Amino acid sequence: MTGDAAWARLAAARVGRLATTAPRIVPVTFAVAGEAIVHAVDHKPKATRGLARLEDLRRDPRASLLVDHYDEDWSQLWWVRADGTARVLDVAEATEAVDALVEKYPQYAGRRPAGPVVVLDVHRVSGWESTPPRTGALS
Amino acid sequence: MTGDAAWARLAAARVGRLATTAPRIVPVTFAVAGEAIVHAVDHKPKATRGLARLEDLRRDPRASLLVDHYDEDWSQLWWVRADGTARVLDVAEATEAVDALVEKYPQYAGRRPAGPVVVLDVHRVSGWESTPPRTGALS
Repeated sequence: MTGDAAWARLAAARVGRLATTAPRIVPVTFAVAGEAIVHAVDHKPKATRGLARLEDLRRDPRASLLVDHYDEDWSQLWWVRADGTARVLDVAEATEAVDALVEKYPQYAGRRPAGPVVVLDVHRVSGWESTPPRTGALS
Repeated sequence: MTGDAAWARLAAARVGRLATTAPRIVPVTFAVAGEAIVHAVDHKPKATRGLARLEDLRRDPRASLLVDHYDEDWSQLWWVRADGTARVLDVAEATEAVDALVEKYPQYAGRRPAGPVVVLDVHRVSGWESTPPRTGALS
C-alpha cells in the first residue's frame, strides 16, 4: 500500500484504536489534521478509567493508531497504522484539531468536544492489504 | 457491563486488536479458549514486520486485546478489553488453541494455522457501553 493510499484510508475511517505503551488500547473517534491525528475527550460517557490514556501519554508519549477492515472474505482485509508521539492539549490550544473533529462528525454539531485534545504527530504510516485474487483474463 | 456479558461479546467478535507494550497494534482473528484468548500465525499474507509482535511478546508478555462496535448512533457504542500476559507456543504445544480457531473460522478449514500460536492468559476483562436513551414509559 502506498503512503498516499494509507493516508486516504486513515482519513476516511470512522473509528480507530489507539495503543499506548502501558499497554492500553481504546477505540477513539478521530480526525486527520495535516500530518497529525487528533482526538478529544468529549461528551460520550467514559469507563471508570477512561482518562487513564492521558496519564499514559503524559508519562510516555509514544502511541499508535490503527484502522482496519475485517471481512469474512480474507482476500479483502486491510489495515493502516500510524505511529507517532502524542501531545495532550487544552481545547484552547487546539482549535484546528477540534475544528477537524467537528467537521468530520455531525455528532459534534452543537456539542463541541470540551477536551483535553490529543494530537498524535505521525512519524510513520504503514499499511497492509491482502492481495485480492486476480480475476478475468490476463490480456 | 457484567463480566459474563463482556466474555460473551469477546467470544462473538470476529476481529480484535492486539496491543503490546512496544507500542504495537495489529488486528487479529482469535478465539476464546477457556479463560484465554488465542490467535495464530496463519496463511494470511503478512506485512514485512508481521512477526514483530512475537518478538515484542517474548520481551514483555503484557498485552491487551480489544473488540469494539462503532455506530454512527453514538448511543450504540461498546467495547470490551481483555488484559493479560501472553505465551508464544509452537502449534504442537497448542492443539486446543488451534482447534478453537479452526472451529470458529471456516476460513481455516483444510488450512490449519501453522503457528506459532499466541495464548493470552486473561487477568482482567473490562467493558464499556454507551447507555441507550430510555424509551417508553417509566412505569
